[in-house]
Amino acid sequence: MNLLDIIIKKREKQKLSRDDITFWIRGVTSDAFPDYQNAALLMAIFLNGMDAEETAWLTYEMAHSGVIFGLSTIPGYKVDKHSTGGVGDTSTLVLAPLVASLGIPVIKMSGRGLGFSGGTIDKLESIPGFRTALSEEEALAFAQKSNLVLMGQTDHLTPADQKLYALRDVTGTVESLPLIAASIMSKKVAAGANGIVLDVKCGSGGFMKTLEDAQKLAQIMVDMGRRVNRDVNAIISSMEQPLGMYIGNRLEVIEAISILKGESGGDLLEVSLTLGAHMLLLAKAVQTEAEGKAKLLEQIKNGQGLAKLEELLIQQGGNPAVLEDTSLLPLSACMHTLAAPSSGYLTQMDTAKIGRAAQETGAGRMYKGQTLDFGAGIILKKRLGEPVEKGEPLAILYSATEGKCRAAAEILAQAITISPQPAPVPPLILDIIAPESQN
Amino acid sequence: MNLLDIIIKKREKQKLSRDDITFWIRGVTSDAFPDYQNAALLMAIFLNGMDAEETAWLTYEMAHSGVIFGLSTIPGYKVDKHSTGGVGDTSTLVLAPLVASLGIPVIKMSGRGLGFSGGTIDKLESIPGFRTALSEEEALAFAQKSNLVLMGQTDHLTPADQKLYALRDVTGTVESLPLIAASIMSKKVAAGANGIVLDVKCGSGGFMKTLEDAQKLAQIMVDMGRRVNRDVNAIISSMEQPLGMYIGNRLEVIEAISILKGESGGDLLEVSLTLGAHMLLLAKAVQTEAEGKAKLLEQIKNGQGLAKLEELLIQQGGNPAVLEDTSLLPLSACMHTLAAPSSGYLTQMDTAKIGRAAQETGAGRMYKGQTLDFGAGIILKKRLGEPVEKGEPLAILYSATEGKCRAAAEILAQAITISPQPAPVPPLILDIIAPESQN
Repeated sequence: MNLLDIIIKKREKQKLSRDDITFWIRGVTSDAFPDYQNAALLMAIFLNGMDAEETAWLTYEMAHSGVIFGLSTIPGYKVDKHSTGGVGDTSTLVLAPLVASLGIPVIKMSGRGLGFSGGTIDKLESIPGFRTALSEEEALAFAQKSNLVLMGQTDHLTPADQKLYALRDVTGTVESLPLIAASIMSKKVAAGANGIVLDVKCGSGGFMKTLEDAQKLAQIMVDMGRRVNRDVNAIISSMEQPLGMYIGNRLEVIEAISILKGESGGDLLEVSLTLGAHMLLLAKAVQTEAEGKAKLLEQIKNGQGLAKLEELLIQQGGNPAVLEDTSLLPLSACMHTLAAPSSGYLTQMDTAKIGRAAQETGAGRMYKGQTLDFGAGIILKKRLGEPVEKGEPLAILYSATEGKCRAAAEILAQAITISPQPAPVPPLILDIIAPESQN
Repeated sequence: MNLLDIIIKKREKQKLSRDDITFWIRGVTSDAFPDYQNAALLMAIFLNGMDAEETAWLTYEMAHSGVIFGLSTIPGYKVDKHSTGGVGDTSTLVLAPLVASLGIPVIKMSGRGLGFSGGTIDKLESIPGFRTALSEEEALAFAQKSNLVLMGQTDHLTPADQKLYALRDVTGTVESLPLIAASIMSKKVAAGANGIVLDVKCGSGGFMKTLEDAQKLAQIMVDMGRRVNRDVNAIISSMEQPLGMYIGNRLEVIEAISILKGESGGDLLEVSLTLGAHMLLLAKAVQTEAEGKAKLLEQIKNGQGLAKLEELLIQQGGNPAVLEDTSLLPLSACMHTLAAPSSGYLTQMDTAKIGRAAQETGAGRMYKGQTLDFGAGIILKKRLGEPVEKGEPLAILYSATEGKCRAAAEILAQAITISPQPAPVPPLILDIIAPESQN
């Protein structure tokens, strides 16, 4: 067997066998193949596709290219979630404590952000003292005590995916549904949970721009669940506007705390409850989505969600006093208010551009390894469909310098459309995709 | 401009602009891009194609990635030819002296062979003393005196094509019509002749397996001629059996000498006359193909073709005595006769396999840089359609050892089919493709 034959096979639109994929991914893991051959094969896969079986084997082999996180010492059904990424999306910080507070273990590995805003790991690290780099032993010990661990992905996990992802980035082979699905799912399989809830973001600020593409991607991953021995449900949620009102690392932590205290709600709460309810459904802790949401809301009301977050902060070295006093999460020095240029209704938000504005404040990375300004970001004052008076604040921007504030505000101004007439607001939850057996 | 955008453009089936192609090929020439990006783009071109304009710009840029051989000091219309390669194809050694003896300059750069048998350069070097590594100055001085130079390609020619060809070889992107056409034509454009006659080989031993593919490739290159300011005619000739009766480096030189002496003929003579006649047509030395063939045949009869070959040998250091006494071109020590296993008619020759048999004798390279056994090869005794008696010799094999002779004979035996009934013999010249203006 040699890689050239496999490249030619896929180039000729033939199906790769399990052996072909195993041979390739083991070679990628051991650096046996030159990157130009991997690149040619990635482009052939991009253009000629892979079917469900090929995608599942690719996922399986990438998952097993490193260690599989051994959660067997943690009793019970373990749940995990993954979002394809969006703006103002801090649902993990809301739902993970809520679900864990119901006795269901949530051991989640997350990444750093590149682009719009920080990833979950960046947000957590914006809390003074919080440690995300845990050893596997430490994480398991924490999980046994608290049911909740939020940590960075270790280098030992899915090295083949890490290598191929870096190569896809520079060879124009990112936006392939089977490659995206295999990349996401291989990490989730390696992270070891039994049940996985996916939040596939769709719209101007999402990875998928159309509902059709989002449904296809979700379906591939849900179908794959059976093949890789995981339960998978997928929510397709709108990214036609930022999910929360706060965008930025500390700002999003502040919003999550506020929700767990029952002091605010909105779309971020709604998506968190939906995702969390499906995690409870997979764990068979509830019978219906509605029951799941009600249980989670109860954990907000009785303060147990917030208490679980406090336990997490103490466990991983974060200062728990931030829960009481969010001024311990200082924001950036310069503040700028973006005023509405006209009266009317907020009819459109170019969410990718809002992400760009947040990046400009210093909340998101322009390049890998860039240090973030944790206190930078944007507080939105209006959502789609709301009436706006000329001169009224649309948003408040925080950044280290006046110049950055103004530059970000300029981008933000271009991203928001105010029209004389209201326009229909797109639904928040666009679709829910679950295995057939569940329907 | 960056290469990633160009990769994505071609991935999305968009047409590359002249600027895109210029940017890419200049970067390839200066090693500005990592091979994994070049590989991804090659695969995207392979799968999504290039139109005539893109292919012409690719050709133009690859041709200009190095020096263009300056033939302007040679008076008159210069002609060149190229064969896509086959078995027993030594037409250059026959037609170049014939055409040059009519006063039309032939300055041809050729390559070494990889695969079936040696290239023209290998065949020439099998003549004791013959030098093919000429400087450009030397070649021009020779051309001015004799009208005929046969030399190796210099490293200064089309470096971008050399780099991309090596990469295509290991990334499964060889068999792409626009990439093949651009590779062939860029070298011919850089070699500087005004008119180019192409011999596109078609059949079991040819690069193109079907007439349709051969016609497509020929049409692309003929159409491209106008765009790159060259006159191009293409002959499509059969490779359903070896072209000549002799396969191997010295063996093919011996057959070419025999033809120039008027002592033998057959398909090799017929193809050489057809290609040569089209070279004369392009140079406007004749009005019709028939007139061209008659003129070339006359140069055989009057001995001027052979005299021109003698002049070439003397000019480039080869021993001219080989023309009188071909035993000065010694064959390999071991000889083996392959006898017909049954009586009947020769109905099929797997010509690629015959090429493999020749390679096994030592006449062709298994890997780049391998030293050839110049005296090795095969003399065929029968052609398609001929009757065969059981036990009659089908071929004589020459090689350095008995073992190699036997191994080659075994492969050769598998390549030849003898049937009780005769089968139709495919025509030798399958099509002739010329620019519309010529019709």
